[in-house]
Amino acid sequence: MHPISTHADAVALAERLLACPSITPATGPVFDELEAMLRPLGFAVDRFLAGEAPDGPVENLLAWRTTGPGPHFAFAGHLDVVPPGAGWTSDPFAPEIRGELLYGRGAVDMKGAIAAFVAALAQLPDDLPGTISLIITGDEEGPAVHGTLALMERMAAHGLRPDLCLVGEPTSTARLGDVIKIGRRGSVNMWISVPGTQGHVAYPHLADNPIPRLVRILSAIDAEVLDEGTDWFQPSNIEITDITVGNPATNVIPAEASARISIRFNDRHSGAALVERITAIAAAERGTVMAKISGEPFLTEPGALSELVRGAIRDVAGVEAELSTTGGTSDARFLSRLCPVVEFGLNNATMHKLDEAVALTDLRDLAAIYGLVVQRALAN
Amino acid sequence: MHPISTHADAVALAERLLACPSITPATGPVFDELEAMLRPLGFAVDRFLAGEAPDGPVENLLAWRTTGPGPHFAFAGHLDVVPPGAGWTSDPFAPEIRGELLYGRGAVDMKGAIAAFVAALAQLPDDLPGTISLIITGDEEGPAVHGTLALMERMAAHGLRPDLCLVGEPTSTARLGDVIKIGRRGSVNMWISVPGTQGHVAYPHLADNPIPRLVRILSAIDAEVLDEGTDWFQPSNIEITDITVGNPATNVIPAEASARISIRFNDRHSGAALVERITAIAAAERGTVMAKISGEPFLTEPGALSELVRGAIRDVAGVEAELSTTGGTSDARFLSRLCPVVEFGLNNATMHKLDEAVALTDLRDLAAIYGLVVQRALAN
Repeated sequence: MHPISTHADAVALAERLLACPSITPATGPVFDELEAMLRPLGFAVDRFLAGEAPDGPVENLLAWRTTGPGPHFAFAGHLDVVPPGAGWTSDPFAPEIRGELLYGRGAVDMKGAIAAFVAALAQLPDDLPGTISLIITGDEEGPAVHGTLALMERMAAHGLRPDLCLVGEPTSTARLGDVIKIGRRGSVNMWISVPGTQGHVAYPHLADNPIPRLVRILSAIDAEVLDEGTDWFQPSNIEITDITVGNPATNVIPAEASARISIRFNDRHSGAALVERITAIAAAERGTVMAKISGEPFLTEPGALSELVRGAIRDVAGVEAELSTTGGTSDARFLSRLCPVVEFGLNNATMHKLDEAVALTDLRDLAAIYGLVVQRALAN
Repeated sequence: MHPISTHADAVALAERLLACPSITPATGPVFDELEAMLRPLGFAVDRFLAGEAPDGPVENLLAWRTTGPGPHFAFAGHLDVVPPGAGWTSDPFAPEIRGELLYGRGAVDMKGAIAAFVAALAQLPDDLPGTISLIITGDEEGPAVHGTLALMERMAAHGLRPDLCLVGEPTSTARLGDVIKIGRRGSVNMWISVPGTQGHVAYPHLADNPIPRLVRILSAIDAEVLDEGTDWFQPSNIEITDITVGNPATNVIPAEASARISIRFNDRHSGAALVERITAIAAAERGTVMAKISGEPFLTEPGALSELVRGAIRDVAGVEAELSTTGGTSDARFLSRLCPVVEFGLNNATMHKLDEAVALTDLRDLAAIYGLVVQRALAN
């Protein structure tokens, strides 16, 4: 084993990462810190920029260590943080311990988890054969176009392909370890436009009001039942989020009407199939659809990986983790193309808020849980 | 008979009125001109201001002449005009005859008709017993709140109540005399608001999206059949003229949604009953309604008055007039509370347009038609 020192203490490591401002997209110093932590542990580190304006360039870090033939376990996460906002008690980029909590932007989302990755690795027995990698992007909170996807290409170029992956997003809710995410819903927004012919309300036969047709489209969409939910997902849901006509004149029939919908959908659907379905509904009333698919759903069926993480949580924290697929999208949707992936991390109560903070015991427990997870993953 | 002179020539009289700028609301000089035309014909003239800001004060003129016991026939109209706009061939307030046409703002809508009223009266036999009145406002094209309504109160104060009334709005379409209006539809606008609770599209159970409820309200409204039309009116019609949500965020469920509708309705309905009907539909989905009734419908059943006017048109112009109830609202909707009222006047092809113009022959024929109408109305 490596000697246990401040190099293996998740709190001390988290303080080093939190001290580097890294509002999305993260660059430079925070990656220097992480690299300086990983190299002594025998990791190869490949740092690179990906993409061009407007969504790039993005700084990314890929690290890996192979100690013999065996499974490949990957940790994934991000070093960028959302803007702190005004009103913090202490400087959001000058980490401060007050009582039992460590304060700083990124404490739970998710520099704390990355510190726990490193602390876990520093305490691992070094006779475990297999490969461990870290897939760390500087852009998860922003457009996320040139982050994890670019890292996956880089891994392929190095001939690396993980067998199991854990994303360190803050999934715990009431206490550390209570929730593991094994999937996420997909998300798609669509813009529906219905053309008409402008005219005077006194002479409707000379006009073609697009609003009744839009109303019929929206009625039909509202009547759609996408599914009743699955064993692991809540029912897919359509929300009509906006309608725009913009006609100030009371005596004028408008020339166009449009609406926007947002669908969060489970693994019974794909974004493309939903776009096709809504397009057909709109076309029946001469409406057209533009769509933006923000993410496809993913599900890692409960099994070896989720049980591995649940067991480690039980052994360290004495908590029975619930498996969940709620919430928004995360980079796990990309990684799920490679191998089974789950998300597990700190308590998300203060994420994206003022005075974001992590309990010191949670940080150290998380490092211990991560350590057990890797150890058991490589042992299998 | 009065001597036929320029005092009895509709063209010369129209030129005098057109030379007085009187963009709505009309004031002063144009009323001075009309008074100067009427006093020599033995009319009492009562000019007065009605109302206060913002819709007043409005200048009005009531004139009447009683030559013995008999029917009371009223002419009604307005001296205000809509703004001329830029691009006229000649000054819109310097009337000019080019070819067979007299140009000027108000030529057909409706200083030309008022000139024809005067020309008709100037040529009447003076041994006709009965009462003739002129109900002339300076605000028909504007808010019309303190115009004809105030004139009706003023008449009542003078103990005057017409038995028949002709409004000189430009009703002719292809040629002088082809259309008489015997009614107008009513008009009401309503604003429907549906409250909700804002939230995130990923957590719809924590929000209450008002849009599906608004869509159901609008579906129900669109399915309403108010009537199939009547002998004299086209079917009442509802148009949805606007929908407003104003939600720029794709992942947010909005807090409110609203829509605006416009109903043009025949004499099967009243504005208040329609407001009640829409309010009940909206209430079923927790929507509320604000309404503005711009005008109630009116119908003068075809009969003595319309036949009187049709006969005069036939005798002067050789045209069989069609009875119509199409178009927007007019001040006839107020006057219809007092007595049978029809609308008949010049060709409306150039009303509210650049280079508004009236055919000289139409002006003189109209004066002759009006003359026959009054003569026969008092003779009955």
